[in-house]
Amino acid sequence: MLEKLKESVYKANMLLPEHKLITFTWGNVSGIDRNHGIFAIKPSGIPYDQLTPDDIVLVDLQGKKVEGKLHPSSDTPTHLALYNSFKNIGGIVHTHSRWATIFAQAGHSIPAYGTTQADYFYGEIPCTRDMKLQEIQNDYEYNTGKVIIERFKDLSPENIPAVLVKNHGPFTWGTDAYNAVHNAVVLEEVAMMALYTQQLTGNKQSMSQELLDKHFLRKHGPNAYYGQKGC
Amino acid sequence: MLEKLKESVYKANMLLPEHKLITFTWGNVSGIDRNHGIFAIKPSGIPYDQLTPDDIVLVDLQGKKVEGKLHPSSDTPTHLALYNSFKNIGGIVHTHSRWATIFAQAGHSIPAYGTTQADYFYGEIPCTRDMKLQEIQNDYEYNTGKVIIERFKDLSPENIPAVLVKNHGPFTWGTDAYNAVHNAVVLEEVAMMALYTQQLTGNKQSMSQELLDKHFLRKHGPNAYYGQKGC
Amino acid sequence: MLEKLKESVYKANMLLPEHKLITFTWGNVSGIDRNHGIFAIKPSGIPYDQLTPDDIVLVDLQGKKVEGKLHPSSDTPTHLALYNSFKNIGGIVHTHSRWATIFAQAGHSIPAYGTTQADYFYGEIPCTRDMKLQEIQNDYEYNTGKVIIERFKDLSPENIPAVLVKNHGPFTWGTDAYNAVHNAVVLEEVAMMALYTQQLTGNKQSMSQELLDKHFLRKHGPNAYYGQKGC
Amino acid sequence: MLEKLKESVYKANMLLPEHKLITFTWGNVSGIDRNHGIFAIKPSGIPYDQLTPDDIVLVDLQGKKVEGKLHPSSDTPTHLALYNSFKNIGGIVHTHSRWATIFAQAGHSIPAYGTTQADYFYGEIPCTRDMKLQEIQNDYEYNTGKVIIERFKDLSPENIPAVLVKNHGPFTWGTDAYNAVHNAVVLEEVAMMALYTQQLTGNKQSMSQELLDKHFLRKHGPNAYYGQKGC
Repeated sequence: MLEKLKESVYKANMLLPEHKLITFTWGNVSGIDRNHGIFAIKPSGIPYDQLTPDDIVLVDLQGKKVEGKLHPSSDTPTHLALYNSFKNIGGIVHTHSRWATIFAQAGHSIPAYGTTQADYFYGEIPCTRDMKLQEIQNDYEYNTGKVIIERFKDLSPENIPAVLVKNHGPFTWGTDAYNAVHNAVVLEEVAMMALYTQQLTGNKQSMSQELLDKHFLRKHGPNAYYGQKGC
Repeated sequence: MLEKLKESVYKANMLLPEHKLITFTWGNVSGIDRNHGIFAIKPSGIPYDQLTPDDIVLVDLQGKKVEGKLHPSSDTPTHLALYNSFKNIGGIVHTHSRWATIFAQAGHSIPAYGTTQADYFYGEIPCTRDMKLQEIQNDYEYNTGKVIIERFKDLSPENIPAVLVKNHGPFTWGTDAYNAVHNAVVLEEVAMMALYTQQLTGNKQSMSQELLDKHFLRKHGPNAYYGQKGC
Repeated sequence: MLEKLKESVYKANMLLPEHKLITFTWGNVSGIDRNHGIFAIKPSGIPYDQLTPDDIVLVDLQGKKVEGKLHPSSDTPTHLALYNSFKNIGGIVHTHSRWATIFAQAGHSIPAYGTTQADYFYGEIPCTRDMKLQEIQNDYEYNTGKVIIERFKDLSPENIPAVLVKNHGPFTWGTDAYNAVHNAVVLEEVAMMALYTQQLTGNKQSMSQELLDKHFLRKHGPNAYYGQKGC
Repeated sequence: MLEKLKESVYKANMLLPEHKLITFTWGNVSGIDRNHGIFAIKPSGIPYDQLTPDDIVLVDLQGKKVEGKLHPSSDTPTHLALYNSFKNIGGIVHTHSRWATIFAQAGHSIPAYGTTQADYFYGEIPCTRDMKLQEIQNDYEYNTGKVIIERFKDLSPENIPAVLVKNHGPFTWGTDAYNAVHNAVVLEEVAMMALYTQQLTGNKQSMSQELLDKHFLRKHGPNAYYGQKGC
């Protein structure tokens, strides 16, 4: 069932090594069919060069596997929590991509320093808080989703499609699996440039709100004019 | 019309991914035919692996599209402003290449630290000022060109074929589209080396004027002797 | 003899250039057959693009060459010391991979800053002490093994499958030659991210013990649940 | 004439792009035939992808072109000065490779921090002094050779086969053109690692003399035992 979804999630997974976002099996992509309330996700620990569309596992929004001969990614409960809470997202990516992971390990958010970030993220990319002992020991992966959701209490997941999980690494999301991978690539790029921007300036002074508005809104929302819209 | 110009601008655009100067569609190249007063530019938001010479858009020096089925790059008004003001340039490149963008995000110029820079840039590579609220809100892309031109009030665009737009990224130019891409590659290289040179020395002390003169002038102007000139 | 071991050690050696862990001949991989008490190792100074399975040298646990037309790696006595002392390891890798070597040159251990490290290393990756004059002048390579073993007096080689030899570079090990290479790739990745994590935070505060436990133990030991175990 | 020399110098030049040591035409390799007192060198400003063995220019030790339809590299007088002064070298390389050039731009020597450097360089890699106004204005390239030679007054070019020319970039040499390229690769590797080693430790404390001796002498001189010597 949902062959088209599985195929697209397979292809989105295969973009991770192509964009050099992962080493070995350190990452996973999922995509959801909101009508069926089912998401497709990479199986756990399978090397990318052995992965086939048939290996993709289907899981429902209660977290039950509904199809697949393999275990789904060990991060499946994190994806589950996010899909249940962020109603408008269609795909999720987790990686240990270098520059984003460095910010996650430092426990620092990524301030918006330039238009590259503003084109995709409407402000800084937040980092989650430390997880508590009981959150780590029981239902760790599900609680990882919970701390992300807590961090977005006053933020819009549509406007900020990424988060850094402290001491761990990034999660990104998007309108579908492919778009979530796209955002993972952008995140890595802006993380690298933000780190050196801080080194050059010696502070964390972000760009002006006006320039942030201009760039985000020329690509997103009703007044967007970038690309071939209406052409 | 101007098939040869469109072909050369297409080829120059395709050099951006080859030289790893861009991610996704974050960049554009244009080239001008000064006799016709028309420049050719990449269409907006088209992925490089789908781009064809036919997609290249022609625009006149009043900013009117004169040929092309697609919207031109959203940065077209910036190119327009530069072509109208810098009368001797034949091509323009905009990218978000990493190291140059880092300096742009920091709002720092790139001092001349060595002969690699001196071979192409006759001094430091300047960074523009903050744009004002009204410059951002109305005709933003055209005003981006205006602040570049303002920055070059006392500088020669022929001798310094690049600028960093604050919180945004680099623009480079040259005798034609191909040469502008060449300068974009050089800019990225000298930006990377300048950043670490500053980290090693802890200051921004540039090279001597004598050595700068020697290297720039052995490659440019009537007494140049690098390469196969007159061979 | 031991053709299968030689073949696997050959293949593991060839992974070093593939993973960009070495320049020229700066590295070697060995693997041991514990039943025969013989290990197979790369010959000294042979370029990787000329290496064949037949060139692999067999050495016994007294350090005597038992097969092979070439000299074994000059680091053979280090491998010998480690195999004799770390009874459960099946393969060893030495490289001068950039980021791990930087920590070795600085004489710094790599603290555990994130789950990438915790998934493979149960804590910090240690650096050895300075070698003494007589340790350098006589039996230098064997003494290199001795200072590694000394460093692991209170550490488990199974739980921390890597070490940094001061002013030299990393050694990693694993269940076999292939797994030792896998750990060499991980080491390089975590070293790079650790260096920049320290630059961002300005300190060496490692991750919490609870999160370290969680990630190491979800991949290792009787309660591991990552991957397709029991599937 | 000297077809074999020209062929080997051509091949050595083509290794520069392969090892990613150059951008565009920013580099050149030469090799000398000491019996004929003639060296072969890359022509000036010819892109590497257009270079052929026939383009290689022959120059004698008085600096006179003895064969070749193209101008030799603009750095030819530097090569000339070095061949005349360093009697035992057989090949010379100049590049603007990133990490070595960064040290050159900073005017810093590269201290010996680890065995990677000690395997090839018997101590720190020196940087030249500032050139004087008259040295820059007249016979600049020949004077570049002179300041290198001055820097080696108390150093052995055989034991330290590289130099950083201040505000410019590296020159390396070796027993022949191929070996000089080999040393250029090593230089780039040790420069990168040295820069970050300094950042980690916050000082310039080099490795011990004993370890430096051990590694240099196990690869060089009468007691060398690395590789397949005598096998």
